[in-house]
Amino acid sequence: MAVSWNAALALNVSQLGGAQRLASSGRAQSASSTIFCCAGPTERRASIVRSGVSCSHELASVSDSRKSVVAAATLARAEPVSTPEVEALLDSIKWDSKGLVVAIAQHIDTGAILMQGFSNRDAISATLASRRATFFSRSRSCLWTKGETSENFINVVDVYLDCDRDSIIYLGKPDGPTCHTGAETCYFTSAFESSNPEALTTLYSLESTIASRKVEVTPKPSWTKKLVENPKLLCSKIREEADELCRSLEDNEGRERTISEMADVLYHSMVLCSVQDVKMEEVLAVLRGRFSKSGVEEKASRNVKAQT
Amino acid sequence: MAVSWNAALALNVSQLGGAQRLASSGRAQSASSTIFCCAGPTERRASIVRSGVSCSHELASVSDSRKSVVAAATLARAEPVSTPEVEALLDSIKWDSKGLVVAIAQHIDTGAILMQGFSNRDAISATLASRRATFFSRSRSCLWTKGETSENFINVVDVYLDCDRDSIIYLGKPDGPTCHTGAETCYFTSAFESSNPEALTTLYSLESTIASRKVEVTPKPSWTKKLVENPKLLCSKIREEADELCRSLEDNEGRERTISEMADVLYHSMVLCSVQDVKMEEVLAVLRGRFSKSGVEEKASRNVKAQT
Repeated sequence: MAVSWNAALALNVSQLGGAQRLASSGRAQSASSTIFCCAGPTERRASIVRSGVSCSHELASVSDSRKSVVAAATLARAEPVSTPEVEALLDSIKWDSKGLVVAIAQHIDTGAILMQGFSNRDAISATLASRRATFFSRSRSCLWTKGETSENFINVVDVYLDCDRDSIIYLGKPDGPTCHTGAETCYFTSAFESSNPEALTTLYSLESTIASRKVEVTPKPSWTKKLVENPKLLCSKIREEADELCRSLEDNEGRERTISEMADVLYHSMVLCSVQDVKMEEVLAVLRGRFSKSGVEEKASRNVKAQT
Repeated sequence: MAVSWNAALALNVSQLGGAQRLASSGRAQSASSTIFCCAGPTERRASIVRSGVSCSHELASVSDSRKSVVAAATLARAEPVSTPEVEALLDSIKWDSKGLVVAIAQHIDTGAILMQGFSNRDAISATLASRRATFFSRSRSCLWTKGETSENFINVVDVYLDCDRDSIIYLGKPDGPTCHTGAETCYFTSAFESSNPEALTTLYSLESTIASRKVEVTPKPSWTKKLVENPKLLCSKIREEADELCRSLEDNEGRERTISEMADVLYHSMVLCSVQDVKMEEVLAVLRGRFSKSGVEEKASRNVKAQT
């Protein structure tokens, strides 16, 4: 099932080039109308009917200092691009009564859920074309590209739909903190007395634990603290654990032993990374560069595919 | 801000014990009414008004074979539990016009987004009490505990709210595949010609790449394939890369070198894991057991906290 859907809906990015932007009267906006208005012409007309304000009214109410921010933001906003493939994809989505689906932005390297918003047809179309996570702001009734004011864009590498086709993931790499508070993700409030400041999965929870033990001052130092303070011990342990991992294969010690030894290798290596102020996120970004395709590379490869 | 919210809302699970279930007339259901009706009495009355059906009608329309499934499902459904702390948390959430928030279930070890649903007050309360991800089914107008029919529960370790308090994460460990199709997650349809069958983040994308190269048959084998087929070479590389990671610290080669060497250690170690049919998910589960608190352990520790 998944394969047939993928085959039917897979988009060829060569058909999503910038030259193919919608140039219909509905979307060909003048700079002046674009800069200070939230919605495109169609949505803006609806907004005017609803709210009784026009673009000029909105413009008049914007302070000079605010104008430059609004202008910059709107210039950085991604625009929808229509192709038959994009329209087919959008037609296959189960929109709610307001023409929206839930859109979740996830960090491609760490897996952190960065934020959640809603997307309409234009928002998804704009995301696919620009590779910048774009949502529909329900409060402002307009498209909103994450980062259009903060410049902390979420660079989308892939877009996934769920089995019901009413929920999507923007899988991407953020340029900086996603939350308006400056936090890496918007999910930093636990319902429990959690020790984690953010919704961390195991690898990053371990990284956070190592970081906190690195600076802790206790009468009886933790094993992590001992390793941090004794590079000779730390390196000796890393070499030892790597050797034990190898021996789990060489001596046929079984997969349970491999699991345990791999955990040891990972933990001790992560302590060394912490000593060097290296984040796992940086390591994974290097691995992604080596073993998977970046958005740009993937785009290029798809263009090649289309030509051959 | 996050800290104060956390402090104000942190729940003490000792106050969420099973003995404190709501026993008011509204929730004290007889077995017969519980088994075949989707909603609790309050919601059920509303449903009857809306749909014109009663529990007996629904019961009559259920086949004998279906009855046992429905019965088992409803018995496995989590029930809401009210405490002042839970009510305070629920009062702080920004519910939409239908009394719902977006609820995202995320795998605590892999970071995979498993599914997304919606939750109302009872669904979150039931999740907090049972530690099983529970949602409000909009199509059936009732609570729905993921796994109530498949037994593939999502065992919730933590619950996170976003900065706007209108979106939550159920961070947990699934008992099995989450999707009704049998897929690990519901997000297996890429909008692009992605090589990943599911929405995989970097570590798991690499794991998937290694797995596919392990079985590939090509005239010129990949480096991964060579390693897989030559355990001596593989182990030699793991020991070598571990040594180079250590030397990046011992010889002060700088953090960039550490990042690169850590990537090498991780990749080569993961190839050995693949040879042993070990999944990173299993390794991370071991690390979680060692370094972070499992749901049960955390619950126990909170009970201790409440008593001291």
